[in-house]
Amino acid sequence: MLIYGDKRSGNCYKLQLLLALLGKACEWIDVDILKGECRTDTFLAKSPNGKIPILELDDGRVLSESNAIMHYLASGSAFIPTSPFTFATLLQWQFFEQYSHEPYIAVARYINLYLGLPEDRKAEYEAKQAGGYRALEVMDKQLSQTPFLLGNQISLADISLFAYTHVAHEGGFDLAAYPAIRNWITLIKDQKGFIPMEA
Amino acid sequence: MLIYGDKRSGNCYKLQLLLALLGKACEWIDVDILKGECRTDTFLAKSPNGKIPILELDDGRVLSESNAIMHYLASGSAFIPTSPFTFATLLQWQFFEQYSHEPYIAVARYINLYLGLPEDRKAEYEAKQAGGYRALEVMDKQLSQTPFLLGNQISLADISLFAYTHVAHEGGFDLAAYPAIRNWITLIKDQKGFIPMEA
Ligand SMILES: N[C@@H](CCC(=O)N[C@@H](CS)C(=O)NCC(=O)O)C(=O)O
Ligand SMILES: N[C@@H](CCC(=O)N[C@@H](CS)C(=O)NCC(=O)O)C(=O)O
Repeated sequence: MLIYGDKRSGNCYKLQLLLALLGKACEWIDVDILKGECRTDTFLAKSPNGKIPILELDDGRVLSESNAIMHYLASGSAFIPTSPFTFATLLQWQFFEQYSHEPYIAVARYINLYLGLPEDRKAEYEAKQAGGYRALEVMDKQLSQTPFLLGNQISLADISLFAYTHVAHEGGFDLAAYPAIRNWITLIKDQKGFIPMEA
Repeated sequence: MLIYGDKRSGNCYKLQLLLALLGKACEWIDVDILKGECRTDTFLAKSPNGKIPILELDDGRVLSESNAIMHYLASGSAFIPTSPFTFATLLQWQFFEQYSHEPYIAVARYINLYLGLPEDRKAEYEAKQAGGYRALEVMDKQLSQTPFLLGNQISLADISLFAYTHVAHEGGFDLAAYPAIRNWITLIKDQKGFIPMEA
């Protein structure tokens, strides 16, 4: 099994962190998106949507979408609840992450950290702030009631949302007003096997 | 069980169509987003992210995110494959839908159909076209190889992507160059129990 990814990308870090918490290893191939390495013909033949991360199985089958790959890697583990309602709630948080969180927080971080907040992206950067704070509100509300997003136990939902939330300050987001989120970040960093994101 | 939704919204239609194909019924409460009905205190108390559709169980528990609700409604049915890899591929298509398809095709449709393509949204509308066509390319590639997204059998992946793809022309997208998508649309419309989206 092979993962193609960039370790500074939160979407890719989700897989690294999950594997570490599972005590598993997987071969890793670095892909530089800024050099267009995920839009080459070879890459597109593997995954036509041209995004990292992807997982390539030994038989050549390929899976894309970070959150989907997580389900494959953690299949049968305690990170995936089995009751239909709790399982659907796990998916709810992962779809929330992709629709209402990542497009604001990860994109603001990208514009700021990778591109150095250039003048022509400033309006877009500013426009991302309100949506990002909205997503943090929604998380903080749940985390004020339960230590992890699904209750007392860590799940894939926490790993998916941890990836960009714990570096939200790099996108200009101040977590000072969200004590429940800050407590949850500490809980995740304390998990056995935890590895930090590469700087 | 109760669904709060707007039947002209593709995200809500996913649930209607799924229930019809499953031969199930569910009580439905209309929510008018243009009147702000999903941002009232009552609605936000049910679902803090303030978006439709949501599903409310008889015991008061609430689920949001269209694609997550589908997993709950179809739990144990043939619309959800059980092998870990095929199941992860189903999720891959649903995350693709939320990240690379809906934000382009559904948003372009919204600007055109609901807002009447106003002058101040024209640039945004134009900017959505390239991303939407990219998503259609990715789908067409798969559907040239297999009749449904996961192979020979219809699954939740097809229902999720059908919702906005079959009305993509309302967002300015021409499906003429995508015969495999057009064939797949016909296959879905031919399913036993199929119901069209409300105009
Ligand atoms: N929904 C995808 C998003 C993946 C994504 O946007 N990846 C970025 C890097 S973090 C990428 O490959 N960007 C390059 C491109 O789109 O050309 C996932 O969760 O895996
Ligand atoms: N990711 C969500 C998206 C839901 C969504 O964007 N719903 C729209 C209607 S189609 C909505 O509620 N918009 C009102 C708002 O955001 O205020 C899902 O799949 O359910």
